[in-house]
Amino acid sequence: MNVAIVGATGYGGLQLVSLLRRSKNYKISYLGGERSAGLKWNKVFPFLTIDNNPFIEKLSIDAISKSSNVAILSLPNGISSTITPSLLKKGLKVIDLSADYRYKSLDIWKEVYSHEASIYDRNDYKLCEEAVYGLTEIYQNEILKARLISCPGCYPTSSLIPLIPFLSQGIIENEGIIIDSKSGTSGGGRNPKENLLFAESGEGISAYSILNHRHVSEIEQILSLVSDNKITLQFTPHLVPLVRGMFSTIYGRLKDPGLTSEDCKILLENYYRNFSNVVVLPVGTYPSTKWVRDSNNIYLSLKVDSRNGRIIILSVIDNLLKGQAGQAFQNLNLISGLPLNNELDLINFYP
Amino acid sequence: MNVAIVGATGYGGLQLVSLLRRSKNYKISYLGGERSAGLKWNKVFPFLTIDNNPFIEKLSIDAISKSSNVAILSLPNGISSTITPSLLKKGLKVIDLSADYRYKSLDIWKEVYSHEASIYDRNDYKLCEEAVYGLTEIYQNEILKARLISCPGCYPTSSLIPLIPFLSQGIIENEGIIIDSKSGTSGGGRNPKENLLFAESGEGISAYSILNHRHVSEIEQILSLVSDNKITLQFTPHLVPLVRGMFSTIYGRLKDPGLTSEDCKILLENYYRNFSNVVVLPVGTYPSTKWVRDSNNIYLSLKVDSRNGRIIILSVIDNLLKGQAGQAFQNLNLISGLPLNNELDLINFYP
Amino acid sequence: MNVAIVGATGYGGLQLVSLLRRSKNYKISYLGGERSAGLKWNKVFPFLTIDNNPFIEKLSIDAISKSSNVAILSLPNGISSTITPSLLKKGLKVIDLSADYRYKSLDIWKEVYSHEASIYDRNDYKLCEEAVYGLTEIYQNEILKARLISCPGCYPTSSLIPLIPFLSQGIIENEGIIIDSKSGTSGGGRNPKENLLFAESGEGISAYSILNHRHVSEIEQILSLVSDNKITLQFTPHLVPLVRGMFSTIYGRLKDPGLTSEDCKILLENYYRNFSNVVVLPVGTYPSTKWVRDSNNIYLSLKVDSRNGRIIILSVIDNLLKGQAGQAFQNLNLISGLPLNNELDLINFYP
Amino acid sequence: MNVAIVGATGYGGLQLVSLLRRSKNYKISYLGGERSAGLKWNKVFPFLTIDNNPFIEKLSIDAISKSSNVAILSLPNGISSTITPSLLKKGLKVIDLSADYRYKSLDIWKEVYSHEASIYDRNDYKLCEEAVYGLTEIYQNEILKARLISCPGCYPTSSLIPLIPFLSQGIIENEGIIIDSKSGTSGGGRNPKENLLFAESGEGISAYSILNHRHVSEIEQILSLVSDNKITLQFTPHLVPLVRGMFSTIYGRLKDPGLTSEDCKILLENYYRNFSNVVVLPVGTYPSTKWVRDSNNIYLSLKVDSRNGRIIILSVIDNLLKGQAGQAFQNLNLISGLPLNNELDLINFYP
Repeated sequence: MNVAIVGATGYGGLQLVSLLRRSKNYKISYLGGERSAGLKWNKVFPFLTIDNNPFIEKLSIDAISKSSNVAILSLPNGISSTITPSLLKKGLKVIDLSADYRYKSLDIWKEVYSHEASIYDRNDYKLCEEAVYGLTEIYQNEILKARLISCPGCYPTSSLIPLIPFLSQGIIENEGIIIDSKSGTSGGGRNPKENLLFAESGEGISAYSILNHRHVSEIEQILSLVSDNKITLQFTPHLVPLVRGMFSTIYGRLKDPGLTSEDCKILLENYYRNFSNVVVLPVGTYPSTKWVRDSNNIYLSLKVDSRNGRIIILSVIDNLLKGQAGQAFQNLNLISGLPLNNELDLINFYP
Repeated sequence: MNVAIVGATGYGGLQLVSLLRRSKNYKISYLGGERSAGLKWNKVFPFLTIDNNPFIEKLSIDAISKSSNVAILSLPNGISSTITPSLLKKGLKVIDLSADYRYKSLDIWKEVYSHEASIYDRNDYKLCEEAVYGLTEIYQNEILKARLISCPGCYPTSSLIPLIPFLSQGIIENEGIIIDSKSGTSGGGRNPKENLLFAESGEGISAYSILNHRHVSEIEQILSLVSDNKITLQFTPHLVPLVRGMFSTIYGRLKDPGLTSEDCKILLENYYRNFSNVVVLPVGTYPSTKWVRDSNNIYLSLKVDSRNGRIIILSVIDNLLKGQAGQAFQNLNLISGLPLNNELDLINFYP
Repeated sequence: MNVAIVGATGYGGLQLVSLLRRSKNYKISYLGGERSAGLKWNKVFPFLTIDNNPFIEKLSIDAISKSSNVAILSLPNGISSTITPSLLKKGLKVIDLSADYRYKSLDIWKEVYSHEASIYDRNDYKLCEEAVYGLTEIYQNEILKARLISCPGCYPTSSLIPLIPFLSQGIIENEGIIIDSKSGTSGGGRNPKENLLFAESGEGISAYSILNHRHVSEIEQILSLVSDNKITLQFTPHLVPLVRGMFSTIYGRLKDPGLTSEDCKILLENYYRNFSNVVVLPVGTYPSTKWVRDSNNIYLSLKVDSRNGRIIILSVIDNLLKGQAGQAFQNLNLISGLPLNNELDLINFYP
Repeated sequence: MNVAIVGATGYGGLQLVSLLRRSKNYKISYLGGERSAGLKWNKVFPFLTIDNNPFIEKLSIDAISKSSNVAILSLPNGISSTITPSLLKKGLKVIDLSADYRYKSLDIWKEVYSHEASIYDRNDYKLCEEAVYGLTEIYQNEILKARLISCPGCYPTSSLIPLIPFLSQGIIENEGIIIDSKSGTSGGGRNPKENLLFAESGEGISAYSILNHRHVSEIEQILSLVSDNKITLQFTPHLVPLVRGMFSTIYGRLKDPGLTSEDCKILLENYYRNFSNVVVLPVGTYPSTKWVRDSNNIYLSLKVDSRNGRIIILSVIDNLLKGQAGQAFQNLNLISGLPLNNELDLINFYP
């Protein structure tokens, strides 16, 4: 299986390279990166060498389609939609890490990503409808058959996996859900920005994009679908001084206040019993993001407040793996007929 | 004014030394510290020298009462109650940083601090009733006249200042309040513990004591008092990799969903208009804990979700100053007839 | 005394604002910053407010000279030389933080700063000769009378203060000096660069500019002057994951191998006996950069290896204060007839 | 091959578990740990689970020798010497991570580790002579045949690999070598100590044990052996705020000042041409400790100062892998007849 990595020099792309270069099933057949196009890979990334030391190439649909069966796009929002239709036409399968095909309705995308919509004139309504949302553990059957897989953002991944079992089965109330998320700075990408400098984000925590982070609508879309209800919720992202890792603390209210922590834990376990990368912790054991660094695992833990029937669910992921490149790799495995977590580390890096 | 610092070698004590040694109004008249008793201060703390280089002394009620007018106690929970009655009898005023006198009811203390209650046999019910809760901006009139001031914990300080204006005036509903707090590791103290090692807490976020952190009951006690209602809420503390700083993200529901962010901001501003260390930020400006390091400020910001009438309030403090030693110093100023924030830095350390 | 801060929005400028806004002796009369010109200061820096909330202004020699007696320039290398002559002509004194006037010989500057020399066509040879090197503790007499003070870089400051007493008195050999320095990331400035991102510089140490860092020639120039010999040495700068702080470990060989650590310590103490911000630690006590954060202190410590007569000297400074803005402020005090460390904190921020 | 890990709950032991639990060649047959003896492994380490979830056991020579062919000891200095002789008698091979057998002469050990020598009464002079120093790339032939392998400390590993090629071939002078090392805090172990707290070691760099770090004598012993000369050098260890990683900056003087950086680089490459985990970087490319995290690689880089014939060599390792458990695993592979780096990651974790 020949795989093109388009946008290889950002953090998402680098993780993909890291996963694919040691694979026995896939070959990196194309490495696209605007910034370093024309240079040999190992010259630019001496700490992440590839055996045959390929050139980094300029974006070219021809070069991609001639060399590859699958293209994984790790590009800024908007750009993906300018090449995906052509790649599909050429017969490739596309796994997209951007937000371009995460909404069933292109109009919602245009609203949420209005800045990008003002630059890129999109009319691929049908493709938006066709694209499958690449949350592996939930949509694996659809992903198996898809031409175009649109991988979720890191915040949605860390929020939806813990929430879907409860909302799809009507265990917690649709109203009043709160997601308080904390992300490492690598989630902001490798392009230099002032707020991501060590001198700025070191030794400080801050919140940002309150009420209007673009991932809110993405989370609400999926939760509305699985619950068959219009869900509106609060989502607050925070930037914390660590490189990798995402911690989401989720608050909801049980419809049946008689349910115990143990009950809810068993429910989660059953829901994900076929997914070795989803680990439900014993009641009273709380995870650290440190437990998932460099792995594709998601750890879940929960506790019910018997005083008022509220439930607190915790999730931790590595934002660059399960939250990005690892999930793309899971989907690549699926469409290649391989086990979901094949060649993906479920072993973390500690301490 | 001669001030004894009892428990001077922990982080709380060191901050007190740092504040008092440069003061023109107070003199450090006694420095108590078990670990280093008998040594000269400057030998142990070459980076925080005191001009007259005093000895660190063993705990002695006699030595304290002979030398000092006020004693600030920065001791482990339980120990404070073994010396406070004697110090008061000797005519000293006591500012206590422990939890020993934070509850009006000693029985509740015995329940919440059951471990300490099993070690220290307390019967000072009356003193618990007499003690004034040292949340400076709220209880300044009571503090002015108090003999015994029991300073709040860092989490309660960061939660109560933003919440009290809304709950005391019935602006937000009593039910469904959520406090999601993030603390730097210095909050765990200077005594070595495995989870506070750099190798453990660096590069990771974790939650702890979910539902049963001791500060929950402290927060609920005060909110119940100011709202005249029994308040039960969710409080989730997180440990994040920074030395100093505490960030609380607070969620509630407005009784009148027509209120705007601007309305609520003005309400907060008015409530704290006399307190230069309480800074209410413009709507849309969100603080970082970095903005308050080494200062006694608390920054507040809020946003209302007009879709569902929910309000999100953010607060940041330096857990060792406004959350601990700085608040004690404010109270010391009050009982000394000095302006609240006299000699307290309202200027942060950046970056 | 009216002081213009030209380049107020970088880290050097922000430290100057932080120092000057609380001063009783100086008034900020002009705030220059290209990026944010036209905006109100407190809008851009809500965490570092100035009472009268001035506008940030575009660079204008007229505006500076009309409003101010002294201009402190915190500008990129090369730009300073385009305005300094005019400012001096208008009668202002100039304290420059860039490298433009650090070399007696403009030709050497052109060689070392060849990139800047290719952009800015300089012929101010005389001004280079006139400019006084602003290493306060060494050149205070010259600074007192200067029109143009060129402040040293952070690495030179941290290296020269420990070395000058030994080299000027011929105590250590001229040959074989090694300076191994470690700097926090704020030394790289506030302009976003990839290597300064938290995700890049967090959890890693690296060396850079080996043998060809521009500060080598600056250090060698001064050491050659004070020792009356041509000094060539090794200087290796490292980037370490902390925001503020610079640690230099300096190796040399004693001419008289019979000298003890205690002898050398006394020599250092005597040399700096009039400078309260230079702290020589007892033999065997080693400083942390943490001890100087937010202060203008430099801590020194040393040890002699009696086996081979080698000496190891350690120095720590806050790279943004003693290494930059604090030193400028010392020089401002000098030319204003005030005590050297007036209004400068000699008290650190801990932990 | 059944392997006992004795001292499994410290950082060294945990890395060994992490490496061995996924191995196809080795089985963990015994897990010793005093602190947690009697508990199931997965209960204590939910983030590092072992499939068969073994018990953690108390130290027992019988239990170790019945279950295992090889014992890897990750114990405090001194304790190892109390069990190693018995284990060898029972026919096991022993790989020791402590310093107990690093010196050919037990008398030197008693001098350097005088505190431990005062507790443990040792007379195993012969065993000290027999033990092989486990610096894999240098002593592989001896290791192959050894019963007792004494693995080097992290500082010696990071210093000796770059220095041995030059000293054993007489390329650099014996006199005047300086090693300036920077270590992450995990090198200090998992037992809580004040200076290793996040609040203490975060946001600060410090030096420690200047001239008298125990690793000096270890480095000098080996360098004296390979150079056939008495080597005395300067070694300065620094503690820097990162979890994993060790950076050594090494200074020496070339005997032949005509040698270029390129010459010396080729010499290093040739010396280690059979070791895929030793990576010599192109001249001008400088490594970060980030490049080796979670890998068994050592990256080397160097530069010659043509002005004075001095050479600067840089090395980076993961102190817990190549500096400790990874090196032990290499040695385990050697005595098991497997390729040196079998099942060892030579792929780093980035960013």
